[in-house]
Amino acid sequence: MLNKLSAEFFGTFWLVLGGCGSAVLAAAFPGVGIGLLGVSFAFGLTVLTMAYAVGGISGGHFNPAVSLGLAVAGRFDFKDLIPYWIAQVVGAIAAAAVLYLIASGKADFAGVKGFASNGYGELSPGGYGLTAALIAEVVFTAFFIIIILGATSSSVPAGFAPIAIGLGLTLIHLVSIPVTNTSVNPARSTGVALFAETAALSQLWLFWVAPLVGAIVGAIIWKALLGKD
Amino acid sequence: MLNKLSAEFFGTFWLVLGGCGSAVLAAAFPGVGIGLLGVSFAFGLTVLTMAYAVGGISGGHFNPAVSLGLAVAGRFDFKDLIPYWIAQVVGAIAAAAVLYLIASGKADFAGVKGFASNGYGELSPGGYGLTAALIAEVVFTAFFIIIILGATSSSVPAGFAPIAIGLGLTLIHLVSIPVTNTSVNPARSTGVALFAETAALSQLWLFWVAPLVGAIVGAIIWKALLGKD
Amino acid sequence: MLNKLSAEFFGTFWLVLGGCGSAVLAAAFPGVGIGLLGVSFAFGLTVLTMAYAVGGISGGHFNPAVSLGLAVAGRFDFKDLIPYWIAQVVGAIAAAAVLYLIASGKADFAGVKGFASNGYGELSPGGYGLTAALIAEVVFTAFFIIIILGATSSSVPAGFAPIAIGLGLTLIHLVSIPVTNTSVNPARSTGVALFAETAALSQLWLFWVAPLVGAIVGAIIWKALLGKD
Amino acid sequence: MLNKLSAEFFGTFWLVLGGCGSAVLAAAFPGVGIGLLGVSFAFGLTVLTMAYAVGGISGGHFNPAVSLGLAVAGRFDFKDLIPYWIAQVVGAIAAAAVLYLIASGKADFAGVKGFASNGYGELSPGGYGLTAALIAEVVFTAFFIIIILGATSSSVPAGFAPIAIGLGLTLIHLVSIPVTNTSVNPARSTGVALFAETAALSQLWLFWVAPLVGAIVGAIIWKALLGKD
Repeated sequence: MLNKLSAEFFGTFWLVLGGCGSAVLAAAFPGVGIGLLGVSFAFGLTVLTMAYAVGGISGGHFNPAVSLGLAVAGRFDFKDLIPYWIAQVVGAIAAAAVLYLIASGKADFAGVKGFASNGYGELSPGGYGLTAALIAEVVFTAFFIIIILGATSSSVPAGFAPIAIGLGLTLIHLVSIPVTNTSVNPARSTGVALFAETAALSQLWLFWVAPLVGAIVGAIIWKALLGKD
Repeated sequence: MLNKLSAEFFGTFWLVLGGCGSAVLAAAFPGVGIGLLGVSFAFGLTVLTMAYAVGGISGGHFNPAVSLGLAVAGRFDFKDLIPYWIAQVVGAIAAAAVLYLIASGKADFAGVKGFASNGYGELSPGGYGLTAALIAEVVFTAFFIIIILGATSSSVPAGFAPIAIGLGLTLIHLVSIPVTNTSVNPARSTGVALFAETAALSQLWLFWVAPLVGAIVGAIIWKALLGKD
Repeated sequence: MLNKLSAEFFGTFWLVLGGCGSAVLAAAFPGVGIGLLGVSFAFGLTVLTMAYAVGGISGGHFNPAVSLGLAVAGRFDFKDLIPYWIAQVVGAIAAAAVLYLIASGKADFAGVKGFASNGYGELSPGGYGLTAALIAEVVFTAFFIIIILGATSSSVPAGFAPIAIGLGLTLIHLVSIPVTNTSVNPARSTGVALFAETAALSQLWLFWVAPLVGAIVGAIIWKALLGKD
Repeated sequence: MLNKLSAEFFGTFWLVLGGCGSAVLAAAFPGVGIGLLGVSFAFGLTVLTMAYAVGGISGGHFNPAVSLGLAVAGRFDFKDLIPYWIAQVVGAIAAAAVLYLIASGKADFAGVKGFASNGYGELSPGGYGLTAALIAEVVFTAFFIIIILGATSSSVPAGFAPIAIGLGLTLIHLVSIPVTNTSVNPARSTGVALFAETAALSQLWLFWVAPLVGAIVGAIIWKALLGKD
């Protein structure tokens, strides 16, 4: 179990350091910034790489909503849910702290502002309201769970799942960063919200509720309509 | 059959929500927008991810032209064609509705305009006429079918087809978005045309005729000149 | 042999239509153009997709330099070299013709100018001279052949070669488009040079000589210093 | 052993020519430059392609820090460490020389300036200080080693490691180019520092110390907390 929780800790650490780090440090770099496309690839590649690296140890969730969705689908033991969630959230917070250390080492550092946190309304990158944010987070998390359940089912040859799942997260970011800055992952949202200089913490509830609901919806759709294993 | 039609419904839903969604929400986001490159990856990754997730259930067509091409090539039963087409079109329309809900949740929402619909002439992103649009849609759909038939033939080890097919759709978008906004998929065109505030519906016929003709051409080229299984 | 030559014809057709097409139609699209990054992906994905689709038929060269390099390395029969070259060049020309048809369907069409042709000196995108162009084309083609020979050797599990080779071509473009617009493929250079409104044809010799020399160099390096099969 | 050292020479040559070459030649190309996103893909694809091409010969390190990390983890023989390091550094210098030749062939060539070298403080692309640079290089190299050890462990089917490792290097660049221009590889840093017109050589020590320390940290984390083989 130590190995599993370590894998979830380091995997979620990597997701936040790589994904949120690319947003904070490189997205808007003058002239040659990576933009939302680069941030989308960064988030996806954190999962792709760590799913290969430690997926064989812990399953490679790195996300409380994924752990819940897998449990609802019968692929993960509910009794391990809380330990996984703790490892994921602690990993996300630790990564946000390291990212803060790096970001604050800039000569003209002037605070981290939103720090890649998630939000709706005034804190939505594109000014999308609560309802749009809720719909987006529920729907995209549901599809993320469907992709995970499908790509790890017995009909797919071993080894390909991290590609499908990682690039699935890239795709989700390509669409929904303007809406909520894209969460689909309560641990990722929690880690950076603690350091944000905005009111991100006051909106954090949505980025627990919507991904968890979406995960349950995705797992039910899979069981009821799509897969059988 | 319920599982198969559900897989086609959700797969085509995902193609429209992810592909058209990236175009509507993120392509031209100020300063850090994903551009046509990001939209191209988004379309391709919808197919890559869902082909892994549910390809083992329905074959993973998510596109009436693909279903027709596979039928012409003898890889799919003609009697399942109409049910598949219905599931695909319904999935595309449902996704367009969800995308509309999200897009209209923007504080300064001012209508969806083209809503990522396909078009030629005045509705072509780059002002390409009917003939160019026809040629592009026929040729690119034909190659898409050749890629699908080849990548799923027995000469390719199991598991790689979704990569080839998904990134093939990315490639097609990289070239042809300026011409027609890229269809090669009548269901995708239909879903968003219903919500577009332009005359997209009046041009929808082309995005059924050309992809379907292209699919037949591709299947015939494959059977006559390239593969044997 | 008909199947093999058809595969080379359609594969090289796709390389030119997809790669050069993305450059001509989408690279500099106002505001959301795919840029050299998108063009690099397009070239690479033409090879990735067609190597999966028809690699099992013809070997998936789509490039006279690749055919020569494989022959020098003992992986391809010299007596098939000329037929392959003819199929490749004819495919490239046919694709350039189709691309011209599409490009000229633009409302404000004002000629194709360079038409994604290769060049040095005044015809180099970044103004690089003859020596820089020669070095770049020889070195990058040599490495392309090393990647191909290595990725298709028995030490790599079946199925991965198209990913390595396709993305290798993407990488080569990421570096060298500013120098020569990137050839490493005499067929690709020939196809579009015939339609270019510049003096591209007068420089075409370099884009036969340098890639062919590079292919021989790459094959010799592989045989002498790296692989054994 | 000649084959192994040749593989490391050519692999590291390719990493510097492709990665640093994309930064020097294409990153800021007017209007259609590939930006930091393109450079990130270029670095990653050098490793992905060469790991497929020659990974079966030498293990595909192309990086003194990787060789050290693998030795600490018990996957590589310490007695081969110095020969590998020499081959890697010589390959990197040779590539920098070829890149200099190409870059200086530009009509309006005005020196290579930083030549894609690594730096902190005034030589950091984004003006990040020594501490931020140290943290970034140690942490990102540590995770790079964890990804390598994990992706090549027995729990991952053969053939996928180059994808995880190459795209892992892409991800690392997506985050950290603004901080140090991203090293995580002392050979890469050394090769271009010799040609840089800045004070890069005076800062080269950090890009040996931090990646080597990071590699040891990564190997220890893997052995202690994650894997067992």
